[in-house]
Amino acid sequence: MANKTAPDSSRRSERSRRAIFDAALALVGEVGYDKLTIEGIASRAGVGKQTIYRWWPSKAAVLLDAFTADADTYRGALPDTGDVAADLKAVLRATVDEFNDPAFQAPYRALAVAGASDEELSRTFVARLLEPGIDVYTDRLRVAREAGELAAGTDVRLGAEMLLSPFSQRWLMRTGELTYAFVDALVDQVLHGLRPRG
Amino acid sequence: MANKTAPDSSRRSERSRRAIFDAALALVGEVGYDKLTIEGIASRAGVGKQTIYRWWPSKAAVLLDAFTADADTYRGALPDTGDVAADLKAVLRATVDEFNDPAFQAPYRALAVAGASDEELSRTFVARLLEPGIDVYTDRLRVAREAGELAAGTDVRLGAEMLLSPFSQRWLMRTGELTYAFVDALVDQVLHGLRPRG
Repeated sequence: MANKTAPDSSRRSERSRRAIFDAALALVGEVGYDKLTIEGIASRAGVGKQTIYRWWPSKAAVLLDAFTADADTYRGALPDTGDVAADLKAVLRATVDEFNDPAFQAPYRALAVAGASDEELSRTFVARLLEPGIDVYTDRLRVAREAGELAAGTDVRLGAEMLLSPFSQRWLMRTGELTYAFVDALVDQVLHGLRPRG
Repeated sequence: MANKTAPDSSRRSERSRRAIFDAALALVGEVGYDKLTIEGIASRAGVGKQTIYRWWPSKAAVLLDAFTADADTYRGALPDTGDVAADLKAVLRATVDEFNDPAFQAPYRALAVAGASDEELSRTFVARLLEPGIDVYTDRLRVAREAGELAAGTDVRLGAEMLLSPFSQRWLMRTGELTYAFVDALVDQVLHGLRPRG
């Protein structure tokens, strides 16, 4: 009996969890972080709001879990073909496609805006999403440094920021287009400075 | 009579203008862009709201003029001592001090947050503040390229973004400290890649 009930209940929970994440991401993109409510998420997901409160203490917690549930599928897995320039271009081109997709970027923008204005929320946002995002690039540059593709003294964390920040800034502040040509030039110009000399 | 009245009236206008700018910058830092109102600015500045409406069509227009009134005092004047690294470090260290000053950064953050969430506002924000800010760095790198301090093929606009975006991202998203050591390392690592080889 326990054997039968547990998987059903677990499948049901997983379905609810996914519905709640989808509802939270869709809603925050539509109404913004300030107007997002647990009630709104529950209604869109077709669950009772007690279901949400049982699992998460706040709308911020729901959203951050929703983002990382997706993010975990690629986290820690920047490609390593032995050609760091090619690998970075491939990943950043895929990221260009994502951030030019209104459905993908709207919830992310809503969370970034909320994080920029709310210092408390930003601590969690940075720790859960931004810092791990910088880390995978830092790690890839470290592997390249160890393989001799980059100079021995390269500050790989700073290198990761030089790659990611111009991208993020263009997207968030709308100071420029996100194109393949832009990320290719960015990767080339950043890596050019980090290559071994002589 | 006209000679006497005109300067008085012009001085009075200039005093009102300055009071309105100061009130707008202080208020937006306190309440955020969404809750900023023309009435609130007028009340804080000690002027009638008709005075504000006579000169500006919207709160966004007041704010952008308030920012550029200050910004115009240093715009277009990045130092040129012939040593591009020293000049960039000097300016970015001064910018570190500004952005670590709560009074300075609060209104700027409020405007950046509003620009990030409001595409219409961001067009003006970018054209009036962000793009001119990138331009002065681009111009300084161009001078360095012409002087042979940077390689002939250097993409100076991209170089400016590699300098400014990591700074802006750390500040806006709170992904890292803004310190002299950070901007010194950033300038060195960016310029290292742009120097002539051989």
